[in-house]
Amino acid sequence: MKTRAAVAHQAGKPLTIETVDLEGPRAGEVLVEIKATGVCHTDEFTLSGADPEGMFPAILGHEGAGIVVDVGPGVTSVKKGDHVIPLYTPECRQCEYCLNPKTNLCQAIRSTQGQGLMPDGSSRFSLDGKPVLHYMGTSTFSNFTVLPEIAVAKIREDAPFDKVCYIGCGVTTGIGAVIWTAKVEPGSKVVVFGLGGIGLNVIQGARLAGADMIVGVDLNPAREAMARKFGMTHFVNPAEVGGDLVPYLVSLTKGGADYSFECIGNVQVMRQALECCHKGWGTSVIIGVAPAGAEISTRPFQLVTGRNWRGSAFGGARGRTDVPKIVDWYMEGKIDIDSLITHTMPLEKINDAFELMHRGESIRSVVVY
Amino acid sequence: MKTRAAVAHQAGKPLTIETVDLEGPRAGEVLVEIKATGVCHTDEFTLSGADPEGMFPAILGHEGAGIVVDVGPGVTSVKKGDHVIPLYTPECRQCEYCLNPKTNLCQAIRSTQGQGLMPDGSSRFSLDGKPVLHYMGTSTFSNFTVLPEIAVAKIREDAPFDKVCYIGCGVTTGIGAVIWTAKVEPGSKVVVFGLGGIGLNVIQGARLAGADMIVGVDLNPAREAMARKFGMTHFVNPAEVGGDLVPYLVSLTKGGADYSFECIGNVQVMRQALECCHKGWGTSVIIGVAPAGAEISTRPFQLVTGRNWRGSAFGGARGRTDVPKIVDWYMEGKIDIDSLITHTMPLEKINDAFELMHRGESIRSVVVY
Repeated sequence: MKTRAAVAHQAGKPLTIETVDLEGPRAGEVLVEIKATGVCHTDEFTLSGADPEGMFPAILGHEGAGIVVDVGPGVTSVKKGDHVIPLYTPECRQCEYCLNPKTNLCQAIRSTQGQGLMPDGSSRFSLDGKPVLHYMGTSTFSNFTVLPEIAVAKIREDAPFDKVCYIGCGVTTGIGAVIWTAKVEPGSKVVVFGLGGIGLNVIQGARLAGADMIVGVDLNPAREAMARKFGMTHFVNPAEVGGDLVPYLVSLTKGGADYSFECIGNVQVMRQALECCHKGWGTSVIIGVAPAGAEISTRPFQLVTGRNWRGSAFGGARGRTDVPKIVDWYMEGKIDIDSLITHTMPLEKINDAFELMHRGESIRSVVVY
Repeated sequence: MKTRAAVAHQAGKPLTIETVDLEGPRAGEVLVEIKATGVCHTDEFTLSGADPEGMFPAILGHEGAGIVVDVGPGVTSVKKGDHVIPLYTPECRQCEYCLNPKTNLCQAIRSTQGQGLMPDGSSRFSLDGKPVLHYMGTSTFSNFTVLPEIAVAKIREDAPFDKVCYIGCGVTTGIGAVIWTAKVEPGSKVVVFGLGGIGLNVIQGARLAGADMIVGVDLNPAREAMARKFGMTHFVNPAEVGGDLVPYLVSLTKGGADYSFECIGNVQVMRQALECCHKGWGTSVIIGVAPAGAEISTRPFQLVTGRNWRGSAFGGARGRTDVPKIVDWYMEGKIDIDSLITHTMPLEKINDAFELMHRGESIRSVVVY
């Protein structure tokens, strides 16, 4: 079949809207009509050329929602007409990782996904007879896309695609890091570094988990209002703190954070996030993606005196199990997504979404097909 | 009263055996006749002058066992005649730390203890009318010593002092890091860096916890035999590994360690210990004490892909609660201490213990009064 898609032909160049060829689903695969997709910093990271694992030409996009329109042989968990969210972290429920309750990092299709290919080692996309690569196993910048069955979460049918697509990455990454990675308890004191989309979702995750004190840290004062709306109780602008930030935060939280979250990708901030944690039990979770080769450092004494340093990918969520829960929370009004979707556009305007991101003018832009 | 003690008059000099004055116990304090004390690397660290918090003159020693011979006003938890192990990490059961199940770092008397003083801000030791400082709240290099009531663990009376004194530090630090900090589960794969006293205790802790695979890593091949006796299943000498140690260990453990323990105090080894952990869930625990100012580093990707970096002090043990359990395990033959005590000597020969340590000829030397 043919489908409209935004193709990334090479690093550093805008996407071009093209009609590409898409093969139907093979065994264990499904064809999904993408109805909406968010445009995420990770797409930008790859498109810019900064991602050392980026490959071209490819169809980017990993934050979508849509409807199953066809299934390949042997598919049993979803059927035509099901509403789904594609999962860049799949959940096979069979591998060593899926069977270990401590992780969500299903490895069933990791190597082919990393090569931009379906699990059988080939691509379903082509243009003028030449293969075009998949991206993160999802390629949601295409109106139709093919995914492994294990890489779609079935969701309720009354959820609006142009909102819940954001659960495909940012919402789950932020809320999940609080709930599934850190397991924040009611009454906790939480410090969140970076009040972009991920940080705001961490904040509403912390509110959902019953945190008492939710401190947001950002150099941009314009971000304070939205963060307060999402549950932030204290705002700290490092530029306005006289002296070192870490002792300031330790004092503000009366001993340190029970949990801190780094949502920027800055290794210096990661250190501050660890060191502002409470002696004895504070846990710091790294969410942000650091530049290639960057390293985190601290004195080991920070750990020996009881701080824990961890990380979170896709919020520690098991996609097929947990993503439908987050959709429910949205539909029940427990979490806010609408306020975070600042821009909506058709596929033809997708490069505008990258421009808005560059200029810091969007929280999340969503492309609606 | 008078007591014989080994006094550290200044950094870098041998201890001198003297008769010092010891005031009796004040409110909440107990007088203990020390029957035996281990000589630990931490005593050496302070005596050498490398410890930035070291102060002199002081009576060192923190790994003792003895008998309560007098109690001050208000003492209720122990009485004359009780056998006890002094605790450099006390357990008040009242402070914010004791009431948080995630930590063992009781803070009740931390500031005075750090200054070499009893909780009321004074020292009980003096020589020629001038105060001599306590050390780690224990000062077990004295035949008699005064301790806060919250800093002694009552133990069974049939336990031999010259063996169970080692539970006052090294045994608990190693076994506890496995059981209380890491919470190693049966079937786990464990990698232990450094096969000195702490490493051997980590190994027997891992065996006690039911680990399937216990890999020991040490540059000294002479340490292999004892480690195997304690439960090590695989020995790795980094000098004999062709290429990088980390991928070698990941391969040996078929994916990485579920738990690793750094028992040396080398920040490069701490990095290896983290990076040899299994993606998704591996936890690395730092036990060793690094040189002042040294820093650990890694790429944040190591944490984002599911590894956890932690530390352990006094094995995560709550002394009054957990130390008596370890004494029981020793008396029941569940753990071996006797093999680790390679030398025994009277107080007059205590400097020999430091010499043996320098030359790497002892695992643990014990002074018997």
